[in-house]
Amino acid sequence: MSEAITITDIHAAAGRLKGAARVTPLLEADTLNDLAGRRILIKAECLQRTGSFKFRGGWSAISSLTKDALSKGVIAFSSGNHAQGVALAAKLHGAPAVIVMPSDAPAMKIANTRGYGAEVVLYDRWGESREEIGAKLAAERGLTLIKPFDEPMVMAGQGTCGLEIAAQAAEADVSEADVIICAGGGGLLSGIALAIEAEAPGLRPRPAEPKGFDDTARSLISGQREQITGNEKSICDAIVSPMPGALTFPVNKRLCGPGLVVTDDEARRAMAAAWKHLKIVAEPGGAVALAAILFHHDTIEGDAVIGTVSGGNADPEMFASAINEFGDSI
Amino acid sequence: MSEAITITDIHAAAGRLKGAARVTPLLEADTLNDLAGRRILIKAECLQRTGSFKFRGGWSAISSLTKDALSKGVIAFSSGNHAQGVALAAKLHGAPAVIVMPSDAPAMKIANTRGYGAEVVLYDRWGESREEIGAKLAAERGLTLIKPFDEPMVMAGQGTCGLEIAAQAAEADVSEADVIICAGGGGLLSGIALAIEAEAPGLRPRPAEPKGFDDTARSLISGQREQITGNEKSICDAIVSPMPGALTFPVNKRLCGPGLVVTDDEARRAMAAAWKHLKIVAEPGGAVALAAILFHHDTIEGDAVIGTVSGGNADPEMFASAINEFGDSI
Repeated sequence: MSEAITITDIHAAAGRLKGAARVTPLLEADTLNDLAGRRILIKAECLQRTGSFKFRGGWSAISSLTKDALSKGVIAFSSGNHAQGVALAAKLHGAPAVIVMPSDAPAMKIANTRGYGAEVVLYDRWGESREEIGAKLAAERGLTLIKPFDEPMVMAGQGTCGLEIAAQAAEADVSEADVIICAGGGGLLSGIALAIEAEAPGLRPRPAEPKGFDDTARSLISGQREQITGNEKSICDAIVSPMPGALTFPVNKRLCGPGLVVTDDEARRAMAAAWKHLKIVAEPGGAVALAAILFHHDTIEGDAVIGTVSGGNADPEMFASAINEFGDSI
Repeated sequence: MSEAITITDIHAAAGRLKGAARVTPLLEADTLNDLAGRRILIKAECLQRTGSFKFRGGWSAISSLTKDALSKGVIAFSSGNHAQGVALAAKLHGAPAVIVMPSDAPAMKIANTRGYGAEVVLYDRWGESREEIGAKLAAERGLTLIKPFDEPMVMAGQGTCGLEIAAQAAEADVSEADVIICAGGGGLLSGIALAIEAEAPGLRPRPAEPKGFDDTARSLISGQREQITGNEKSICDAIVSPMPGALTFPVNKRLCGPGLVVTDDEARRAMAAAWKHLKIVAEPGGAVALAAILFHHDTIEGDAVIGTVSGGNADPEMFASAINEFGDSI
């Protein structure tokens, strides 16, 4: 079976994103390199519009819709970053947006989603089905569902991040390295994997996930989509999806190296490291790749490693506690 | 009398800095623009190597030295950002560096300066003369003094930031705007002023300073270099210089619009705003331009305004307290 998208789709998405999304920098800090004993290059997607890479996928998908579909509007389910990406992309296209969010999503993400003009429908993550709520609304109003990862145009949009990594790594004289990518459903992972396969074949994509939500790491081992069972919790709200996507996993299975798994406290220490050395804001789920690079480095080879900081929408108390606890020592 | 440098010196510095310094991004956040009712474009020099623009000036000066001078080494006085910039630039040139720092400088700045391989000599800011300590060491060892701002090659290095602002503003479709620049001795201000005079004449440089250290604002009013008297204190340690430079002020007098002055609490609120909306880390002195843009906007005209976040080397407790206090409300 052929994969959901090809490098051609990613280049087409890059064309649609030009002038709308930001080309984010690939950052490096001398102090962090010294600490790690190798070069660490961080793709700072927290500096993307809406504070995460999700704007790429949202814009890619919405810019592919017909005028009629745009006028009726879009709907998305999300704990926050996809919500904000879709909300802003919809607003800039003049399309109404309904976002179904769990009532325990970070307050900043809910507020920002509303700020981008979307109608936010809150639901109880543990008692209600967001799919039922969403299906009802979509049917009533003729809304187009923008899925967070298992959607070809979203995957293609996230892949534009990989095109930039390929070009920026070459500029930084890095042609062989692991690229550690924060993974929930695997949209960013699959997009980057396809982009670097085509444009920087010496780079190897690998997922990083929070403990208890290592469905992609497990699936890469077994060769099939594994589902998380049990009632683990994690502060990494952006990437606590229970199972790899049906469209993303075949790509990731073919292209990715072994997964890396980090604890919540390692993610918090990585937030402090990003703050102290790189001067950027990482949210917990956006910090897992850097956490893997810093604290699981024994499984990473080479003089250089690339990682994503995929989002920066953290609540203040959570962030302050991480830098108060680890800011002096990291 | 002719000015200390011209645009030619800035272009020459840019040539020396190529591949060594980072081209920092000009960032913009939709949420911050909405809050302010105009576009706010922030030159994120906190993302520069060593966490502040000072690396530009340090590299520019040190890369101009003779081999003999390099082998003897350099010396600098600094509370921290110039210290780090000079220390890393010296290390990368293989030159020894001695940095004379006040013993009450932020701990992170002292630690980083040592981390870049410099010999740090601490002195008591209120009881000892750093000039005497420095002159003695320089004479004994034949060290070249790298002044923090009143030095042509340093001014030219800081000016490279202005070349980038000119190009990036044009790319962002901004041709007329105030450019608010954090000002201590006026090195960054004068460099940017000369660069945009030549390359983006519709942009107008204006200094931002902390209350009690508004020597540049006062000097621009009186037309001569005014010295701060009295015993004011400020958390903006990077820019508490008492008097504009002899070389920087003639440039700033000719080119700058009126100065803006902010309180320490406004700087802390701006740190929280940079954290929340732009996802970057600003130290207090690096946040005064954004503070002026956000809280003294009545004196700024136009649909767009540009500002520098000139450094991000904040201590954790100070930073955490700012975002805990203002992160939800800003």
